[in-house]
Amino acid sequence: MTDPIRPTDDEARALARGLMDDATFAALGVMDPDGGGPMLSRVAIAMDPDAAPISLISSLSAHARALAADPVCSLLVGEPEDRGDPLTHPRLTLQAQADPVARDDDRFVALREHYLALRPKSKLYIDFGDFYLVRFTVRRAILNGGFGKAFVLTPEDLGL
Amino acid sequence: MTDPIRPTDDEARALARGLMDDATFAALGVMDPDGGGPMLSRVAIAMDPDAAPISLISSLSAHARALAADPVCSLLVGEPEDRGDPLTHPRLTLQAQADPVARDDDRFVALREHYLALRPKSKLYIDFGDFYLVRFTVRRAILNGGFGKAFVLTPEDLGL
Repeated sequence: MTDPIRPTDDEARALARGLMDDATFAALGVMDPDGGGPMLSRVAIAMDPDAAPISLISSLSAHARALAADPVCSLLVGEPEDRGDPLTHPRLTLQAQADPVARDDDRFVALREHYLALRPKSKLYIDFGDFYLVRFTVRRAILNGGFGKAFVLTPEDLGL
Repeated sequence: MTDPIRPTDDEARALARGLMDDATFAALGVMDPDGGGPMLSRVAIAMDPDAAPISLISSLSAHARALAADPVCSLLVGEPEDRGDPLTHPRLTLQAQADPVARDDDRFVALREHYLALRPKSKLYIDFGDFYLVRFTVRRAILNGGFGKAFVLTPEDLGL
């Protein structure tokens, strides 16, 4: 078999970082704590001051319960915008560990301000008691820039 | 805690089925065969004659290698179309088992015709030797119709 992974170059690094920076939401994959394997959902995302992905999630959600049991997860960002073949649109897979920033965490107040500035619509629910922030520590990323354009990236490639 | 899951009704069933029928692509979550937990990617999808999701994938892809090792997976369909809060747009999580329909499988010829009729752009690659079809047997679904509107659905609820 041909190895479909190309050598990482600056164009791939810039494309991947741009997909992260432009993302307002992502697919999140967690382990189903009831033994059902991977389980996907949609979450809002933004980038923290260190350029790492963060999300605001509810402790009532299935993914919150799953992340509490196993913080190893994956995100997919880069959404098709039009009616062309969606597989030609670049997308980025992140493999990560979810680090909860609870409401009583020392980091919460500053990170709440940061998130709220970037996502002002979240003011409708950010102060509900069941909402908290999650920071994703990226371990590895896979960029798919379209057919035959796959790259494996490190945190350093993403400026992390 | 309040149980955020509502009783399933016909409106939820119709919304969920509509999200499947309208989907041309999905996020796919598989288990990383290298032990990295959930791993997401984007796949093209369509519905087979029995209304089950199918996809055309390359054996060179990371998700194909993962599904060969562990067919338990998850799909997410229902894409935001505009600039509103993406979390208000309904989406559907499917928990499923991937059943490969290889090029030498008795079902391949008919399913290829069906897929090609629904996704004519795939004629550019459907006959490449590394591409094959996958049928997803849905075990359980979670519909998120927007904040506070979550439902758990059975295959029967989806007409499967």
